[in-house]
Amino acid sequence: MGLFSKDIKTMDDLFVHQLRDIYYAEAQIMKALPKMVDKASNTDLKNGFSEHLEQTKGHVRRLEEVFDMLDLDAEGVDCPAIDGILDEADDVSGEVEDKRVLDAALIAAAQAVEHYEMARYGTLIAWAEEAGRADCAKLLKQTLEEERAADRKLTEIAESEVNLKAA
Amino acid sequence: MGLFSKDIKTMDDLFVHQLRDIYYAEAQIMKALPKMVDKASNTDLKNGFSEHLEQTKGHVRRLEEVFDMLDLDAEGVDCPAIDGILDEADDVSGEVEDKRVLDAALIAAAQAVEHYEMARYGTLIAWAEEAGRADCAKLLKQTLEEERAADRKLTEIAESEVNLKAA
Repeated sequence: MGLFSKDIKTMDDLFVHQLRDIYYAEAQIMKALPKMVDKASNTDLKNGFSEHLEQTKGHVRRLEEVFDMLDLDAEGVDCPAIDGILDEADDVSGEVEDKRVLDAALIAAAQAVEHYEMARYGTLIAWAEEAGRADCAKLLKQTLEEERAADRKLTEIAESEVNLKAA
Repeated sequence: MGLFSKDIKTMDDLFVHQLRDIYYAEAQIMKALPKMVDKASNTDLKNGFSEHLEQTKGHVRRLEEVFDMLDLDAEGVDCPAIDGILDEADDVSGEVEDKRVLDAALIAAAQAVEHYEMARYGTLIAWAEEAGRADCAKLLKQTLEEERAADRKLTEIAESEVNLKAA
């Protein structure tokens, strides 16, 4: 990004940059989720990751709608944050042999991803509203709600099943 | 970490790994915050970052107490997630010339950091409680509450001042 130094001049530029960041992030998450489905042992967790993969495809489509509303091509920018979060998930889960402990590690990794997305969508919604783009904000809010729900569901699975068995 | 493959065998190992991860993360945040104080223009934001730097030093001390409670040396492990989040903050804020837009970008970056920490502390608290370590959980909860409060304060500053001026 250094090559394009000082390319972000206005709030609109910043909004588009962040939109491209989360677009790239969602694409990476879409690639990571099937591996998490494979690694998970707990049935609810496995199903939860599968459902979230379908939801994530919807999030990507919604972002493409937002790009369309703004007359922009849908394209990503490198997002070292999500790359780091997913690399770490891979590293840690690669170290764990016990299935229950691995499930707990996968939940922790997924919640770090969800929180990253909640932060990004929260920011995008605030910026869209201030820019008078209620149409974009509305779509982004639907995704934010789904990310929050996914995070709550992970907490429920962790509290009711995985951690207790792994402890 | 690949060198220590399969080193995480139990929930206790996973807990300690995550504790080391957030210990490293807090240290990196402590290094990043003075730069954010320098870059911020809005007075509330500048003061907010300064206060959070002091709080962060307290978070590091609390983690050291937790290590102590567990009879472990306080040491970090590489945390690609926080490295990625902070690199991205640096990249984006390096591109922004306008002071108001830069403030908005800094808030977004700081909220991504807060959310990462909230996810990690949330997980650590759940694992500590399940392991019957209410003493550790209590300390970690104090930090979680401070991270949440910092995140809310950033939203308030964004909503009341920075974004409106930058829009």
